Amino acid sequence: MENMESSLIRIKKHLTKLSEFNTDSGEGLTRFSFTKEEQAARKYLKKELKKIGVEAYEDQAGNLFGRIEGENPEAPAIMIGSHYDSVKNGGHFDGPAGVIMALEVMTLLKEEGFKTQHPIEFVALIEEEGGRFGSGLYGSRAMLGAISYQDLLNYKDKAGISMAEELKKHGFEPKKIKDAARDPESIKAFIELHIEQGPVLENEGTDLGLVDFIVGINEFKVKLTGRPDHAGTTPMDMRKDALLSATRVVQEVEAAAVRAGEGTVATVGELEVKPGAANIVPGEVEFTVDIRSKSAELVAEVKNAIQSILAEEEKESAVEWEINELLSVDPIPLSEEILALFEANAKENGFSYKKMISGAGHDAMVMAGMTDVGLVFVPSKGGRSHCPEEWTDYEDLQKGIEVIYQSVKDLGGQNG
Amino acid sequence: MENMESSLIRIKKHLTKLSEFNTDSGEGLTRFSFTKEEQAARKYLKKELKKIGVEAYEDQAGNLFGRIEGENPEAPAIMIGSHYDSVKNGGHFDGPAGVIMALEVMTLLKEEGFKTQHPIEFVALIEEEGGRFGSGLYGSRAMLGAISYQDLLNYKDKAGISMAEELKKHGFEPKKIKDAARDPESIKAFIELHIEQGPVLENEGTDLGLVDFIVGINEFKVKLTGRPDHAGTTPMDMRKDALLSATRVVQEVEAAAVRAGEGTVATVGELEVKPGAANIVPGEVEFTVDIRSKSAELVAEVKNAIQSILAEEEKESAVEWEINELLSVDPIPLSEEILALFEANAKENGFSYKKMISGAGHDAMVMAGMTDVGLVFVPSKGGRSHCPEEWTDYEDLQKGIEVIYQSVKDLGGQNG
Repeated sequence: MENMESSLIRIKKHLTKLSEFNTDSGEGLTRFSFTKEEQAARKYLKKELKKIGVEAYEDQAGNLFGRIEGENPEAPAIMIGSHYDSVKNGGHFDGPAGVIMALEVMTLLKEEGFKTQHPIEFVALIEEEGGRFGSGLYGSRAMLGAISYQDLLNYKDKAGISMAEELKKHGFEPKKIKDAARDPESIKAFIELHIEQGPVLENEGTDLGLVDFIVGINEFKVKLTGRPDHAGTTPMDMRKDALLSATRVVQEVEAAAVRAGEGTVATVGELEVKPGAANIVPGEVEFTVDIRSKSAELVAEVKNAIQSILAEEEKESAVEWEINELLSVDPIPLSEEILALFEANAKENGFSYKKMISGAGHDAMVMAGMTDVGLVFVPSKGGRSHCPEEWTDYEDLQKGIEVIYQSVKDLGGQNG
Repeated sequence: MENMESSLIRIKKHLTKLSEFNTDSGEGLTRFSFTKEEQAARKYLKKELKKIGVEAYEDQAGNLFGRIEGENPEAPAIMIGSHYDSVKNGGHFDGPAGVIMALEVMTLLKEEGFKTQHPIEFVALIEEEGGRFGSGLYGSRAMLGAISYQDLLNYKDKAGISMAEELKKHGFEPKKIKDAARDPESIKAFIELHIEQGPVLENEGTDLGLVDFIVGINEFKVKLTGRPDHAGTTPMDMRKDALLSATRVVQEVEAAAVRAGEGTVATVGELEVKPGAANIVPGEVEFTVDIRSKSAELVAEVKNAIQSILAEEEKESAVEWEINELLSVDPIPLSEEILALFEANAKENGFSYKKMISGAGHDAMVMAGMTDVGLVFVPSKGGRSHCPEEWTDYEDLQKGIEVIYQSVKDLGGQNG
């Protein structure tokens, strides 16, 4: 228990310290890749790794690593970690919580002198949010081999500076970006901890979310074309009001998601009315639809329902419609084996948990393309994230870290 | 009939000629007050008045007049006309059609040598659209005495040039703007012709719209506040989606107008979603509501229905709401006497007509504050206006002009 107390103190200290490497003091956390604040955070992590006797190193993508060799150094590694960049004026937990999980697990392993068969690899990823270069999930995609030199030239910040330039400036060789690609054979598993970014755990008073699926996402734009008419001179029965049609579609987006169930969600988050004047009947409305589900079939079901009501609107209200696909990602099942370990260790500690889907994409989603993946959620206060109010109690975070620590030991294979 | 033929040729010639005084050639008509195009149009009208022996003169607001004295020069004048400015990239008929009506009525009176007891006054108003200085209905409001020198300093175009500066530059004395105010005793009636700007006449195949009421308008903004949540991680039943609430309100706006009947219309023309990202549940939606009716009671009825559903949304969906008033204008009844003359003369000529309300404000609405007003609508192709496609057949326009011509003679009192 003494161990646990000092662990809690360390978790709080690391997170508080990381919070200080912040470009926009006062309004949450802003820490973009390759800014001086990111470099300071990187330096801090290197120093902390060194303190526990772990040498830090980087790949050509700019991701930061530390490794405790296993009894069998030929065995594939168990990689643990998350990202430490943020969105603009985001919170202090989205990303860093998982990096500190990895640091603490390494610390506990060292403290305990616990030896696993498999090497344990700490990773602190960058540019997961795409906050600076618009290239989300960059660090993990580089490990997957999905980033090319051309991509690095194309990824630019608002000032027009490319990722390639910044990498070079910081001592990396962007032309060797493919060196960051990991041989899948070298990784046994990837385990991430992340804040839930949703209200479920807090609302239910559940300690941990053990993720079984990362949702599939289908995002598209719907354009409804009616006719812009004078709002004063066009009788109600002679209008082709694109907004009125849109209201019925927006309602069906919700209704279809509720009917689909199993955690399926669907959202209209952006909606633009044209010409957009108080005295003109809307002639055109364009809006986004974002459907997420653990089942590709349920995503398709919701989309079909939306297409049906669009066809109905065309028939009943004479508006025209078109759909433009923005994004389509299949649902990803995570490792059942790792999930079982999480469950066993949560029970062991008397922590409450629920199996849940992850409604957001995470580095874990990319890593699932090359290895077995486990993902643990800790509660988000009020479900808030990507905002200064983002918060997770350190005690809650520690529970997630404890479960991962024990699961890493189980998965790593004890060598007594 | 020979007369009628040459009248049609004149109408077409005048409108075609006025169309050429256009700042933005190719995309409809753009003619803002005190531009060189407006000055050229003014010069053309002066020249045409002079041709028929009518001296043109201006008031301190910049409105253009011409007058045929009556047999009784002490009698109040029958004023006829409309405006000749346009919106940006508007059409060739909104405004000019009524000015050419006035020019043609003056021409016919002169041609026929018809003498009325009352003087007949031609007026070509400026800045009705507020296209340049944002000060709509300016010309008629100046005649009402509703424009002050301070207003002229405040009315500015996008380059920051004030109405006062422009008036001065063109030889007027902005400090004497109150001289433009007309003694109501000096005006017996104001008669305007305008394009319908709606689809009713064309759809029904009716020649003329004889306006009995100019609608009352209530315009306000509704703000709905829910909670912005992550679209992937917030279950459907834990959301406070401001857009979903808004869809129900927008539908009630329509339903309430339809229930109210008697030509009542209600429109949501502007709607903004915040934060407005595909993956964030809308936390706030702000939209305009524009209600128009010939009856103030029906306007209130629609507004009450909207407030009821807002209260219901607050109860059912926990969104908060507020309403901010933008505009409230009472309905204005036009002159029954003049309407009866219009009817009689339409019948006399075998023109079909319908009594209708005007859903848009016009100079006639302002003039109703000081005198008896008559307003005749001619059909708009496809109900379109304020766009390059705006169109009225010259034959249709001529019908309106003929009815007004005969009504002016009736109202002016023949001196046989």
